[in-house]
Amino acid sequence: MCNIITSSSNGKYKELTALLEKSKARKESGLFIIEGTRIFSEVPKELTKEIVCSESYLQKNGEEQMQGLLFTVLSDALFTKLSDTKTPQGVLAVVKQSKYTLEEILQGKAASSKGNEAQPLLLMLEDVQDPGNLGTIMRSAEGAGVTGVILSKGCVDLYNPKTVRSTMGSIFRMPFTYVEDFGEAIQKAQAAGVQVYAAHLAGKKAYEDFDYTKPTAFLIGNEGNGLKEETAQKADSYVIIPMLGKLESLNAGIAASLLSFEAARQRRLE
Amino acid sequence: MCNIITSSSNGKYKELTALLEKSKARKESGLFIIEGTRIFSEVPKELTKEIVCSESYLQKNGEEQMQGLLFTVLSDALFTKLSDTKTPQGVLAVVKQSKYTLEEILQGKAASSKGNEAQPLLLMLEDVQDPGNLGTIMRSAEGAGVTGVILSKGCVDLYNPKTVRSTMGSIFRMPFTYVEDFGEAIQKAQAAGVQVYAAHLAGKKAYEDFDYTKPTAFLIGNEGNGLKEETAQKADSYVIIPMLGKLESLNAGIAASLLSFEAARQRRLE
Repeated sequence: MCNIITSSSNGKYKELTALLEKSKARKESGLFIIEGTRIFSEVPKELTKEIVCSESYLQKNGEEQMQGLLFTVLSDALFTKLSDTKTPQGVLAVVKQSKYTLEEILQGKAASSKGNEAQPLLLMLEDVQDPGNLGTIMRSAEGAGVTGVILSKGCVDLYNPKTVRSTMGSIFRMPFTYVEDFGEAIQKAQAAGVQVYAAHLAGKKAYEDFDYTKPTAFLIGNEGNGLKEETAQKADSYVIIPMLGKLESLNAGIAASLLSFEAARQRRLE
Repeated sequence: MCNIITSSSNGKYKELTALLEKSKARKESGLFIIEGTRIFSEVPKELTKEIVCSESYLQKNGEEQMQGLLFTVLSDALFTKLSDTKTPQGVLAVVKQSKYTLEEILQGKAASSKGNEAQPLLLMLEDVQDPGNLGTIMRSAEGAGVTGVILSKGCVDLYNPKTVRSTMGSIFRMPFTYVEDFGEAIQKAQAAGVQVYAAHLAGKKAYEDFDYTKPTAFLIGNEGNGLKEETAQKADSYVIIPMLGKLESLNAGIAASLLSFEAARQRRLE
């Protein structure tokens, strides 16, 4: 039986806290944390650096569940203190971040290594701020067959615990990358033969009246302000999602999902 | 100039706190609270019981902005203490709840009084738990031309402040009602000539292959568990939202939006 960490002044405990709370600590270490019993089915073993569990979790499930992975045990009280969730399940994984280049994503190579051989279908997110929203976008994107997600550096950190949770495992299956210069990334996509669409009020045609069976990217803007005008102007076409009622806009996650699932619908008909 | 409330032991302050925090207080009074400067454009005047603002909000905007409505002033410190938001805008409205009967919603009468003359397009939500999710569903529903929303009594309270905010004003424009017996409500919808669809893994046909131009209702289940089996069995048809990747399910708000916007797309083609 290994040692049990009981003190919040322990160095390992501090490291774990920093990985949960600080985007900078995640960036510098190239690690992040995912909580809950789903880790054993969701996290690729080769990316798992370490399992951390509570004393009673280990007693209940035994060492066999750790599948030979390195693991650390915290006292129940300390695990509860560490946990980002209201009802901790007593186990989390410290996971290595996956790295993709913009070029891999534009060519769909990242996705095809995961068994997806479709034409590139990309989401390009500008300054999406809500962690839950971003997680939901990743989750829907996987369902719609999106091949990669490109994020402006102003987007919230995808590795924060709330976002990780709300991706429901898509974070391990959906290739993504943050880019320094979002406008340049749009131009690179276009140079690679990708048609870039912006949902924009100046659009004249409904979103279902475009052909998304060819390489396609959708630009999705910030929740409060939408796309920056200079970003929208780089798009090849403006599309509108026709709306009834008196709404000004849709939630960014809903808009991203409607566009990607329309692409999926068209690609099913091919 | 009216009196300024400065103490948290003041009776009015306590009432406001209860309306913000307690579903029971909202139910008993038939009132709820919506925060922020959008209230002056969004809240129907005839539903506004009272405006509550901070001292500096009143100084900055003057009494004219109150449009002759009854208003109460709190000290800045007390308003900040009351507010449900991180960065309070200094103003909120106490609003009367709208009441619709199931029958009005099934006949689309509630919606047609709001200028929507379409065939009924209904969302029936079973035990949706996340306040933000429910708000987003209401918002998307309005955009898609949904004529009414029917909620099981196990759904979260639509009048809680987080949900109210995330509806972006749809709460005033989308007819809705809570029902004691969800199964009975489904049967009443069917008796009124509404086709009831459940998103269900046992479905054989994709959601875009059904005709939603006739009176239509979509059943949407709880975030974690989906629809209860006994509920799903009451549906006229099962539909599937085909998914790629390894996802088990979509977020309830996303599923509701995909289905309602597919209905909207079909109805545009009519």
